[in-house]
Amino acid sequence: AFSEMVPVLNLVGVPSTVQQISKPLLHHTLGDGRFDAYNLAAQQFTYSQAFLRNKEHAPDEIDRVLTDCITKARPVYLALPTDLVSAKISSRRLRIPLNRNPPAEDPRLQSSVLDLVVKHFQEAEGDAVVLVDACAIRYDVKDELNKFIKKTGFPVFSTPMGKTAIDENLERYGGVYFGSISRPEIKEKVESAKLVLSVGPLKTDLNTANFSYNIPVERTIELHFDHTKIQYAVFPGVGMKNFIPKLTERLKSFHAAASMLSVPKFFNFVPHEKTEIITHDFFWPRVGEFFRPKDIIVTETSSPNFAIPDIPLPEGSILVSQLLWGSIGWSVGSLLGASLAARKKGLGRCILFIGDGSIQLSVQELSTMLRVGVTPIIFLLNNSGYTVERYIRGMTRKYNHIFSWKWTSLLTVLGDSQGKELSKSYTVQTKDELASLLDDPAFARADKVQLVEVIMDKLDAPKSLRLMT
Amino acid sequence: AFSEMVPVLNLVGVPSTVQQISKPLLHHTLGDGRFDAYNLAAQQFTYSQAFLRNKEHAPDEIDRVLTDCITKARPVYLALPTDLVSAKISSRRLRIPLNRNPPAEDPRLQSSVLDLVVKHFQEAEGDAVVLVDACAIRYDVKDELNKFIKKTGFPVFSTPMGKTAIDENLERYGGVYFGSISRPEIKEKVESAKLVLSVGPLKTDLNTANFSYNIPVERTIELHFDHTKIQYAVFPGVGMKNFIPKLTERLKSFHAAASMLSVPKFFNFVPHEKTEIITHDFFWPRVGEFFRPKDIIVTETSSPNFAIPDIPLPEGSILVSQLLWGSIGWSVGSLLGASLAARKKGLGRCILFIGDGSIQLSVQELSTMLRVGVTPIIFLLNNSGYTVERYIRGMTRKYNHIFSWKWTSLLTVLGDSQGKELSKSYTVQTKDELASLLDDPAFARADKVQLVEVIMDKLDAPKSLRLMT
Repeated sequence: AFSEMVPVLNLVGVPSTVQQISKPLLHHTLGDGRFDAYNLAAQQFTYSQAFLRNKEHAPDEIDRVLTDCITKARPVYLALPTDLVSAKISSRRLRIPLNRNPPAEDPRLQSSVLDLVVKHFQEAEGDAVVLVDACAIRYDVKDELNKFIKKTGFPVFSTPMGKTAIDENLERYGGVYFGSISRPEIKEKVESAKLVLSVGPLKTDLNTANFSYNIPVERTIELHFDHTKIQYAVFPGVGMKNFIPKLTERLKSFHAAASMLSVPKFFNFVPHEKTEIITHDFFWPRVGEFFRPKDIIVTETSSPNFAIPDIPLPEGSILVSQLLWGSIGWSVGSLLGASLAARKKGLGRCILFIGDGSIQLSVQELSTMLRVGVTPIIFLLNNSGYTVERYIRGMTRKYNHIFSWKWTSLLTVLGDSQGKELSKSYTVQTKDELASLLDDPAFARADKVQLVEVIMDKLDAPKSLRLMT
Repeated sequence: AFSEMVPVLNLVGVPSTVQQISKPLLHHTLGDGRFDAYNLAAQQFTYSQAFLRNKEHAPDEIDRVLTDCITKARPVYLALPTDLVSAKISSRRLRIPLNRNPPAEDPRLQSSVLDLVVKHFQEAEGDAVVLVDACAIRYDVKDELNKFIKKTGFPVFSTPMGKTAIDENLERYGGVYFGSISRPEIKEKVESAKLVLSVGPLKTDLNTANFSYNIPVERTIELHFDHTKIQYAVFPGVGMKNFIPKLTERLKSFHAAASMLSVPKFFNFVPHEKTEIITHDFFWPRVGEFFRPKDIIVTETSSPNFAIPDIPLPEGSILVSQLLWGSIGWSVGSLLGASLAARKKGLGRCILFIGDGSIQLSVQELSTMLRVGVTPIIFLLNNSGYTVERYIRGMTRKYNHIFSWKWTSLLTVLGDSQGKELSKSYTVQTKDELASLLDDPAFARADKVQLVEVIMDKLDAPKSLRLMT
């Protein structure tokens, strides 16, 4: 969560305030009296920590870490001793809304940086593109960005981690820039622009196809959550949340010129292949046709998060991916969380893509989905093992092999038995079977947990993954 | 592992030595260049750490943490950069066996403490008992202890965490001392002795029935792995591994007197109950009759590890329990490890007792058992939820309820399909069904993975647990 900038509150029940001092030999302790060990370890992976010691300071401490959590988009740690759980405290602070905005900035600094940025746009004669990356999503500037694009008319592209920050069917949207493995027309447009306005960049190895950007620093302006960078110069204290609206006002005069810049069409293309086998080259664009506006699409690390960048997603859809941290198994719990949020906020269907290796790490959360009554769709890509690892090392080695599970009976075992009909499971082996299922309105309605086992070849992988490993 | 004193080598693959310095934005990092964060966090939970930086120092560093791991019985952390994985190093150190023994001790200190201890035995006129606890197992003094008992003849008892350090069918063995909830005859013998020689004590809340020992410090001598304590006096540098053999020699003259001390018989008793329902009061002694010499018995936290102390275990059996740390879910992986070790070392059957709540945390390891071909028996106590938590808090609350799984189909889904016959699953609902299964030689042979779902009442619990919560 720290790495991926996810605001998570880690609320930890701990022994009572008296025991924090007397340190008895309790279970769930290390047995040597170090009651602060977890707090010390958590410091490495949380932005801030609060250890409640008395009820007087509790409200301030709680608000402090909650504010950090939201404004810094990082996990925070809150330790709650057992005796304070039911302590009564004043409700006074509940009347003051938490501040979600970044702190006020120096207006003279801001306007000076604004002048500089505008000057660069003038020198580039408006030949600029916008490149949207992860931090635009993490630090919540999607609205500001969409207004910027609408009012200025500049072509806009996204990185894999910035995908869905900008609606992908927007007229001025040109697709995903993925360094050396981008579509050629996208690569050409982004790398030949006189100026690239990079919003919330996070140039990780996997997000840049192994650091393969070809955009000189001299042509780059970067907007970050707490600073701005013009070419090589860093301006701390100028954050994008406040900056983008002001920049929009100053650059809207470029609209006529910017609108003349051509934008590649980011189209979806389902190839015609001779084989009936479901290949990655076929699967992803075909599934692309199945997506609907407002769908939440979760792509597990490995084939799914390498394949999805190239598939245009509909208006209002949300892509949940994890390219920086890049662990496996995270997406099942993430799907559960997304499904609960979608139900509460009236968003669309929740759809997970995951391999047979990754799902084994956190499979029990499917049971929780049945229990709480959410109804996601899970595409389980069964390619008999850790295919991405096979490409990295040990193509035929045993440690990349996965013991085969009976996937279509899984949801029954995990609690959907005795005629409850909370779920439905399918296996698709051919392109026709996949197409029939995707075109079935009952399936597309997503009114129960649905698991689709997609049989794929052991060594097939998305093109981007084959190119990168 | 730190808490429970388990020697685990945490071998961590990390970016190359060059990347440790240049700190690129790699996946599996925190994204802010802190490549040492995991090492810092691990310091809280490991005894020592080594971060290999070059191949010259690697052999010394590896041996240093391995020696700590074994002699201190704690986990250690070893970070191995990718470029050193295939580096060639000298094999010289492989010719020097690692030192598994504690360091040499000051002989004058040792003999002075020895004199003092013997004096206390003389003053007690040999009216002493031995109480064996966790650290006798963790710091590997089982052989020394058994010789001590044989040569001196003192009555010996164990704590719940010390169980199976001493063979429980030994003539001088009197059973498990569990503070206030001990069997009355055991409580009386231990608490009325003029002297208690406590070997490897670890007086945690759960191991002492909430700190309910009634043994005055004035009557206690404690032997620890790195010190000895006589009444209130601590003698650092006198560790039990070297001390017990010397003490055996000095105290063997008490054999005649010690042999006169009566020892309660630690018997197993299966009650006759009117109900056909399988109660905890019935289940544990009945299963006690099923155990065989050399069995490895793993008891998950909650009902199993509270029930097992009262059940006599056969010669050479090993109990694996976790009363200090007391997490749930650990026992499935532990069973896998125990099964692999048992196969390699020619030990007996591996038998797990676990609840329907705990097993959901780590259920996928059952699939690994099928894959690697070990053949444990798993008694799954299905009481529809977290019964121990119900006793602690929220007797009827929803958060203690578990979504019911179709347990007898679980192993099929986890890989035992298509006629492989790697496993067999059973449900027992009545005492008769349980008895028939336990008496079936094919079941007892344990030649495949066997899962037994034992249906129990939602609010039934072992007596010790009911008394403690």
